[in-house]
Amino acid sequence: MAVRRVAIDTWRENVAYLHRDCSVYRAEGFQALSKIEVRVNGQHILATVNVVDDASIVECNELGLSEDAFAQLGLENGQTVTVSPAEQPASMGALFRKIDGERLGREDFLAIVNDIAGHHYSKIELTAFVVACNRGELDREEVFFLSDAMVASGQRLDWHEPLVVDKHCIGGIPGNRTSMLVVPIVAAHGMLCPKTSSRAITSPAGTADTMEVLANVELPLEQLSEIVRDHRGCLAWGGTAQLAPADDVLISVERPLSIDSPGQMVASILSKKIAAGSTHLVLDIPIGPSAKVRSMPEAQRLRRLFEYVAHRMGLSLDVVITDGRQPVGNGIGPVLEARDVMRVLENDPRAPIDLRQKALRLAGRLIECNPDVRGGDGYGIARDILDSGRALARMQAIIAAQGSKNFDHNNPQLGSLSFEALAPFAGVVAGIDNLQIARIARLAGAPKVQGAGVDLLRKLGDAVEQGDVLYRVYAGYGADLEFARQACSRSNAYRIGAIGDVPRVFVEF
Amino acid sequence: MAVRRVAIDTWRENVAYLHRDCSVYRAEGFQALSKIEVRVNGQHILATVNVVDDASIVECNELGLSEDAFAQLGLENGQTVTVSPAEQPASMGALFRKIDGERLGREDFLAIVNDIAGHHYSKIELTAFVVACNRGELDREEVFFLSDAMVASGQRLDWHEPLVVDKHCIGGIPGNRTSMLVVPIVAAHGMLCPKTSSRAITSPAGTADTMEVLANVELPLEQLSEIVRDHRGCLAWGGTAQLAPADDVLISVERPLSIDSPGQMVASILSKKIAAGSTHLVLDIPIGPSAKVRSMPEAQRLRRLFEYVAHRMGLSLDVVITDGRQPVGNGIGPVLEARDVMRVLENDPRAPIDLRQKALRLAGRLIECNPDVRGGDGYGIARDILDSGRALARMQAIIAAQGSKNFDHNNPQLGSLSFEALAPFAGVVAGIDNLQIARIARLAGAPKVQGAGVDLLRKLGDAVEQGDVLYRVYAGYGADLEFARQACSRSNAYRIGAIGDVPRVFVEF
Repeated sequence: MAVRRVAIDTWRENVAYLHRDCSVYRAEGFQALSKIEVRVNGQHILATVNVVDDASIVECNELGLSEDAFAQLGLENGQTVTVSPAEQPASMGALFRKIDGERLGREDFLAIVNDIAGHHYSKIELTAFVVACNRGELDREEVFFLSDAMVASGQRLDWHEPLVVDKHCIGGIPGNRTSMLVVPIVAAHGMLCPKTSSRAITSPAGTADTMEVLANVELPLEQLSEIVRDHRGCLAWGGTAQLAPADDVLISVERPLSIDSPGQMVASILSKKIAAGSTHLVLDIPIGPSAKVRSMPEAQRLRRLFEYVAHRMGLSLDVVITDGRQPVGNGIGPVLEARDVMRVLENDPRAPIDLRQKALRLAGRLIECNPDVRGGDGYGIARDILDSGRALARMQAIIAAQGSKNFDHNNPQLGSLSFEALAPFAGVVAGIDNLQIARIARLAGAPKVQGAGVDLLRKLGDAVEQGDVLYRVYAGYGADLEFARQACSRSNAYRIGAIGDVPRVFVEF
Repeated sequence: MAVRRVAIDTWRENVAYLHRDCSVYRAEGFQALSKIEVRVNGQHILATVNVVDDASIVECNELGLSEDAFAQLGLENGQTVTVSPAEQPASMGALFRKIDGERLGREDFLAIVNDIAGHHYSKIELTAFVVACNRGELDREEVFFLSDAMVASGQRLDWHEPLVVDKHCIGGIPGNRTSMLVVPIVAAHGMLCPKTSSRAITSPAGTADTMEVLANVELPLEQLSEIVRDHRGCLAWGGTAQLAPADDVLISVERPLSIDSPGQMVASILSKKIAAGSTHLVLDIPIGPSAKVRSMPEAQRLRRLFEYVAHRMGLSLDVVITDGRQPVGNGIGPVLEARDVMRVLENDPRAPIDLRQKALRLAGRLIECNPDVRGGDGYGIARDILDSGRALARMQAIIAAQGSKNFDHNNPQLGSLSFEALAPFAGVVAGIDNLQIARIARLAGAPKVQGAGVDLLRKLGDAVEQGDVLYRVYAGYGADLEFARQACSRSNAYRIGAIGDVPRVFVEF
């Protein structure tokens, strides 16, 4: 059949568009959901069939493919492909056993993850896998099998050095851009830190989104490797390197279900780090009333699972449990967060203290991965590197190497529209809801509109008078501002109370 | 926004097509999977967003809707609708609790089923519900809550008679068209039997597909009611009446996962029957090596669950466990099955004995629902009605009332292409794989091509010589014939062995 690109983005599910009168569709007998196999040049993909009644989208003897599917096969319009009814993916038996609640073995996970990475699963099958793994929890050996299979599904980098460090946070805290400080600090110290970051999934900005304000983040793997060798670090988007690609596919169904089960979180994070060639990882688990982890026992269970799997995979892991009661720094959204990061690097008096302190502590822990550094000395070393301007210099070198965007943090390009959220009465800021403030920032346009977001003027424990500005919301478009304002009027994310109402910190760090 | 019908059949999931440069899409921040709410004339639906880069599909300020979604709102092209970011469906909290393995209450099931029937769930959420209910099994009270909520999600018919009978089979046995014999027999006996049937889901023909060879089956509810009042029975498609509509939505994800858990099967079947106004039901559970139920203990567990829920819902239920070792009758596919049914009704010597016997036994059980009939007399009454030609006359009256297609079963319009499957060596037919023979019939074009399918010339226990014809496959198109032939050459579904190899019948019925 002649193939045609249908310019519809079906979000990681391959969809084939077939005209209702097409002979291939008929053979499948009315099954709008059934799958077909598309082959060309020795490659093949599976795609879910959507039936089309409009010849301007696809004609009777054409096969339409959604954007992702078309790109995967590297096709040109009109090229001839072979279509056949799809055999079920090889791992379907293992999937059905997991749905039935069985424990799976190493081979099962390898087969399933291989099919997922090869886009052989439909959204329905993906969801079934994710939900079946969520319920009854994977046992810890299964989490190891899953992580290991995810590494095997893609490329694996080897830096040929004994110490390759990285840091990661399990997420959920807006403004938590410590990576952009930790990487230049430890790289300036001489450690190898090839940090690949994610874009925002449900948050108003991922590290890659914020770094993109300062420099290019979509770099081919060869250029990335060169930058890492030259500067001992980078801050790029992880999606271009094919590291644990099954994870990206799974995320497409985990997100709408808000599923973030411990097993899947561990497999997702550790597989990416192993694939990126890391040998040592510092992992940040924030706790707080609106953080992903809400109690210390829960944090400890999660820590033990991370440690078990990391050990099985030969990764040296240091878990730190941190204060997740409120956003870190002041800005939420790419430009605002980039401004905060640059202020810390420049030792600007306006720099948010909490962001600086957290980054120094994490960098200190990483520096202590070096066996030559005495336990407890890391923080001081990190602070010296930051205060002396060596971290800033290293960041500027990395920015220049990745391709500078000439961001001026003293004159950040914020959204031209804004409104302010005011304190309804006098008191003390006793709570900031991470989830709601993130939602407001997203509705305002972040991360798509780089200058959109929320700038926090008050943080936990601050005294406010009635009418004081709690935060300012920036947007680039009127409709966005309106959506954010509506969300804000339902709940502004701030709780004003007495000083005794501020939740206690669980953690020392 | 101006709305536009996009002629894509997305199989029961509402999809909204938005241009990438559209302001509504931008506000949602890159989330190709996120949902929007579409409002018009006091109605609203939720739809999953697919992003489009081709203005000929949707333009920048247009909202494209898939066929189902468009039809649900009863729109015209160009009409103005209001679009907003979707709030999560109200039952999402209950869904998340079920995913986490909690037992749900009556209100939870009402909320979830209401959202499902209202098309507020995406395929991902539907799958999550189905898989979460599959694992760890719903307890029997939860199955009752689910069934009850499914009845409440749609219309409920009331025939104002004390005895409204129906029969149902749990499925899985090709050619099992007993309903088309049972309905005219019991209707001729004077019992009210408003049978609504399904179309094929994974099988080569549903009762509605086979009946459609003889008469119209898509009738408005008013006409259906009139036919039932006039003739005491009908054989129509259940999809037009809005009976337990949530079930139809759930099937769209259960099918590709081959999920047919006891709880979901019971809720699906009983809710449809209660909604159709039945008071008495005879339920057929076939057992066999390639049937849905493969052992007697499994059949008994399923029977008890059906009985518990039927009792809670006030339905009188009689479960019969039948021989499911092979297809019933000879023909598989709409025309071939219609031919078998008409041969039985006409007492034609070529009529398949097994189909006749099974139908008479089921009809006998239904007739015994009448308290005036003595236990054991039902079969004889049914046989008299069939042998005397009264069942045929009643069937002809029902066919005429629904709108006859003038089918001539002595000259059935079979597919013009065919091939024969031959015995590879001499022996006895020791096994017929229901699943594989159904697959071959489907690939040949059934049920879409009415004359396509498989005609069985040998059944279990029959002696065959090498080269004897086991069955003949009919197709309407060359490509279909080829797909069927390939499947047949991988496995022809027949096992030839010695007479002692024929599996024993578990059941008396």
